[in-house]
Amino acid sequence: MIKIIVDAMGGDRSPVVNVKGVVKAINNIKDVKIVLVGDANQLTPLLNAEKFDGARLEIIHASEVIDCNEKPTEAIKNKKDSSMSKGYELLRTDDESRAFVSLGSTGALLAGAVLRVGRIKGIKRPAFCPILPTMDGKIVGICDSGANVDCDPLWLQQFAVTGSLYMRKAYGVQCPRVALLNVGTEEEKGDALRKQTYELLKNTPSINFVGNMEARELLSGEYDLVVCDGFSGNILLKSTEGACMGLMKLLKKSMMSSFKSKLGALLIKNKMYEIKDMMDYNNYGGAVLLGTAKTVIKGHGASKAEAVYQCIKQAYDMEANGLREAIAAEMENA
Amino acid sequence: MIKIIVDAMGGDRSPVVNVKGVVKAINNIKDVKIVLVGDANQLTPLLNAEKFDGARLEIIHASEVIDCNEKPTEAIKNKKDSSMSKGYELLRTDDESRAFVSLGSTGALLAGAVLRVGRIKGIKRPAFCPILPTMDGKIVGICDSGANVDCDPLWLQQFAVTGSLYMRKAYGVQCPRVALLNVGTEEEKGDALRKQTYELLKNTPSINFVGNMEARELLSGEYDLVVCDGFSGNILLKSTEGACMGLMKLLKKSMMSSFKSKLGALLIKNKMYEIKDMMDYNNYGGAVLLGTAKTVIKGHGASKAEAVYQCIKQAYDMEANGLREAIAAEMENA
Repeated sequence: MIKIIVDAMGGDRSPVVNVKGVVKAINNIKDVKIVLVGDANQLTPLLNAEKFDGARLEIIHASEVIDCNEKPTEAIKNKKDSSMSKGYELLRTDDESRAFVSLGSTGALLAGAVLRVGRIKGIKRPAFCPILPTMDGKIVGICDSGANVDCDPLWLQQFAVTGSLYMRKAYGVQCPRVALLNVGTEEEKGDALRKQTYELLKNTPSINFVGNMEARELLSGEYDLVVCDGFSGNILLKSTEGACMGLMKLLKKSMMSSFKSKLGALLIKNKMYEIKDMMDYNNYGGAVLLGTAKTVIKGHGASKAEAVYQCIKQAYDMEANGLREAIAAEMENA
Repeated sequence: MIKIIVDAMGGDRSPVVNVKGVVKAINNIKDVKIVLVGDANQLTPLLNAEKFDGARLEIIHASEVIDCNEKPTEAIKNKKDSSMSKGYELLRTDDESRAFVSLGSTGALLAGAVLRVGRIKGIKRPAFCPILPTMDGKIVGICDSGANVDCDPLWLQQFAVTGSLYMRKAYGVQCPRVALLNVGTEEEKGDALRKQTYELLKNTPSINFVGNMEARELLSGEYDLVVCDGFSGNILLKSTEGACMGLMKLLKKSMMSSFKSKLGALLIKNKMYEIKDMMDYNNYGGAVLLGTAKTVIKGHGASKAEAVYQCIKQAYDMEANGLREAIAAEMENA
């Protein structure tokens, strides 16, 4: 049995989507056990309306929620009865609890991971690694996407190693093609951080380093993992998301602007849905925090039930396939 | 009369598009004079096929072209008979020549600007400022988009000042809303560079600083100028471009995959072209290098004739509206 703690609060549609996602996980994954942390007064009626194996669900009441606008470290330290603090407290003290999934404040989740969970021995800094769909129907990981805005080359080298293990253990990508995000593909390109990191990656035998990648190639399907500092990773992730969403909105608006185009829109509706579905982050789980002593996953604040389920499945797969142990072994050999 | 030097070579479709763009400029702008630098053997027959006021065109023969794969500084220094080197040599020595437009190697163009043209007094580093269309039909500038990968906060402050003047003088945006590219909107967000830059921008009276901007808001129309270091600006620009182009390609492929959707595609074709046209960088000129002693504009390597024309028009507008003088005056007051 793999025990996973789920923060019931903190997302835009919490706790409704969290409950539905948890129920789907219990029904679909036969050896998962969930601890749901949140306001029991809200959770009980929602759970009563669902059918699932109650023996594999535990509820821990938490009366407060950490807000996205609160100072992360202070919130984790002071808001003791918040769902996130209580979830982390359980993760820290209960040996059986192996992972924590939350849609709440990214900053607080990161602060909690550092303060309450700690790192795998040898890991310099944990890093977020979200997954994006590529234009050829595959996926690409971005590591780090925002946990560390000021980075050292050695940290980026570790992101490459842990990210490669993640792509292998969680998604079955056997020999992940690792690229360094840069302003050009030539070896000598970039700032001081990139030049030093390139040298390190070139000389890291445990990864399949394929060189620099320009930002416009992110969705090309040519790369499985993109390594970057958390600042530029965040820019890469959010500008890609922003451009795709903006363009889809523009298309929709444009197609509704005449009778002829409305008719056309009707005929291509299914294809548009296919693309929207393919691009929907709800289908790709959350951003895992790589390098922490226990598994931590950040789901998108706007997640639907499917995304919550995918985050739980992701945590389950990582644990079932021994990702943390693999990272620990790699760190010992380094 | 405003005299502008145009590099006839160096783009993917040079010199054909350069010649057509130059002819359009001479025909549309009555007081522009063009010096076209490139292989006369190729240029003469192309020009003979066009109708324009020949008195406003001069050709300077250059037998070589600087390649995108050459080392920039060495290429500018050693390839004396290349169109770019000769163009810069004229810009440097001829008082009447006010601007240089090229579709060639970005690195070489930047090296040439530094080595041959120099900076306006007080400018710490010239910066590229390309323009993107926003989802509401306006435009947004990104400064710096790649000239300076390692940056100092004071440089970013200057990018904000010169970029604001550019948006005003070249595009008539009276009070440009300036944002700092960051990983979140709150004042305390970001790395050391962002925190220091935020303080500086807040205390720069000559700009309209509206705070931090997340990458996903780039095309929202809420901002007129985004200030960033050249590394993250490059990521921002290229990932936006890559996502938009990738998505359009995916849509096209998807719509061609069934009879029904093909019919639908036919009905929305005009709307799709409208959007493609709106997003087409050919209509927005090139990336100006702000802060150089004479105007330098980098057009996209894949530019068509329209883009070459827009680059020339952009150079013309900047000169006609006294952008360089305005920057010099601002630097004197700083």
